[in-house]
Amino acid sequence: MENEAQHIPFFTKLFTLSQVVGILSVVLVGVWCGYFRGGFAWFNDPTLQFNWHPFLMTLGLVFFYANGAMIYRGFRSEKKKKLKILHMLIQLSAFIFSIVGLVAVFDFHNKSHPPIPNMYSLHSWVGLCTVILFACQWLVGLLTFLFPGLRPSVRAAYLPIHQFFGLFIFVGAVASCLLGLTEKAIFSIKPKYSALPTEGILVNVIGLALILFGGLVVYLVSHTKFRRQTTEDEVLLTDTVLE
Amino acid sequence: MENEAQHIPFFTKLFTLSQVVGILSVVLVGVWCGYFRGGFAWFNDPTLQFNWHPFLMTLGLVFFYANGAMIYRGFRSEKKKKLKILHMLIQLSAFIFSIVGLVAVFDFHNKSHPPIPNMYSLHSWVGLCTVILFACQWLVGLLTFLFPGLRPSVRAAYLPIHQFFGLFIFVGAVASCLLGLTEKAIFSIKPKYSALPTEGILVNVIGLALILFGGLVVYLVSHTKFRRQTTEDEVLLTDTVLE
Repeated sequence: MENEAQHIPFFTKLFTLSQVVGILSVVLVGVWCGYFRGGFAWFNDPTLQFNWHPFLMTLGLVFFYANGAMIYRGFRSEKKKKLKILHMLIQLSAFIFSIVGLVAVFDFHNKSHPPIPNMYSLHSWVGLCTVILFACQWLVGLLTFLFPGLRPSVRAAYLPIHQFFGLFIFVGAVASCLLGLTEKAIFSIKPKYSALPTEGILVNVIGLALILFGGLVVYLVSHTKFRRQTTEDEVLLTDTVLE
Repeated sequence: MENEAQHIPFFTKLFTLSQVVGILSVVLVGVWCGYFRGGFAWFNDPTLQFNWHPFLMTLGLVFFYANGAMIYRGFRSEKKKKLKILHMLIQLSAFIFSIVGLVAVFDFHNKSHPPIPNMYSLHSWVGLCTVILFACQWLVGLLTFLFPGLRPSVRAAYLPIHQFFGLFIFVGAVASCLLGLTEKAIFSIKPKYSALPTEGILVNVIGLALILFGGLVVYLVSHTKFRRQTTEDEVLLTDTVLE
């Protein structure tokens, strides 16, 4: 484990940086929606109800999801079983935030006068595919690794697929956010967006912060040196990691 | 090498699928720009000159770039030195296509009446950062691995960084394309985009095709089973792969 231990200080620095950038992204989206887009409401104002959409998607599908994915790295001394349940619960919270975020945007479209069509833009296609994939991933993960928990050989074979799609969904979530930021900036700030007012700069900075956060998270999760076990073979052969 | 050989048929299927999806993406962008957006020109019509931008960025920064990255997997029996030179040349072509694609959009903005501002949108920020990172990656790669070619220990230490940023730049390129598609769809098809006409569907399908291509390429490049060597340690310890 000496090999693993020597990488922990570097991991801790990058992990801390990822948390700072992730929290900054969520706060900036909050400032954008809360200040520049008029604040939050649910029942009485569809325009303000919409603002929950970017905020909850960033909080749930990006920040919570990323921390759910990084939990095996961040709490490496905890028991695997405990981490698996925590992983499942954090991803469940991420999913619930996403669903409430989706309700907010559909409500906004349907309650507007005249109603705004749903599901026509690339953002909506990519975003909904991402959430559907996330639902499948969560369910198959639950059935395979926790309840009922399949044979170790099946779990070992599925693990790399779960890991790959985990990151694929995360990158899809970040891409969906960038598309949503672009759409909203053009619809709401335009034609002033091209003069790059404060709100335009804020939207672009949120986009870059999300990309930086995405890059850090993918690196922390995928970098083999940061794994609890040193090699993939060990991961596949050790039953304890799959219990 | 038995372990490596048993994964080759699966690799070949996925690699073929990636080529089909990649070529389809480029052709669909060609159809979009060539038919729906009026065709291509360079000197006499800024609007038609713009159409080179999406086409060349997709061809260069996505399709050529991806094939440059996958060359070590696709031609696994070739000599490493030959592949490294080929990798460098394909990425150089990808970079040249990107630069011509950038000239096309700056020309379109500057020659329009009235001129359209440059570099205000999230697409432009993400896209330019991606191209600048690509230029740095290419140059540092050239100096480290080919000319003058640094010490094997330095090259071995830099290799995982080169690989990570290689994929980061590729994902950034795909994300930039999605942002560009969204921008152009809203600016050019709007307000009809929300009624999802044929062009709107085409733009969205191009986006999904690019995501599928991106996912396949990242999987093929990063999946350890598809590497020439079985373990990362072998890669780091074998001088021949770094020559």
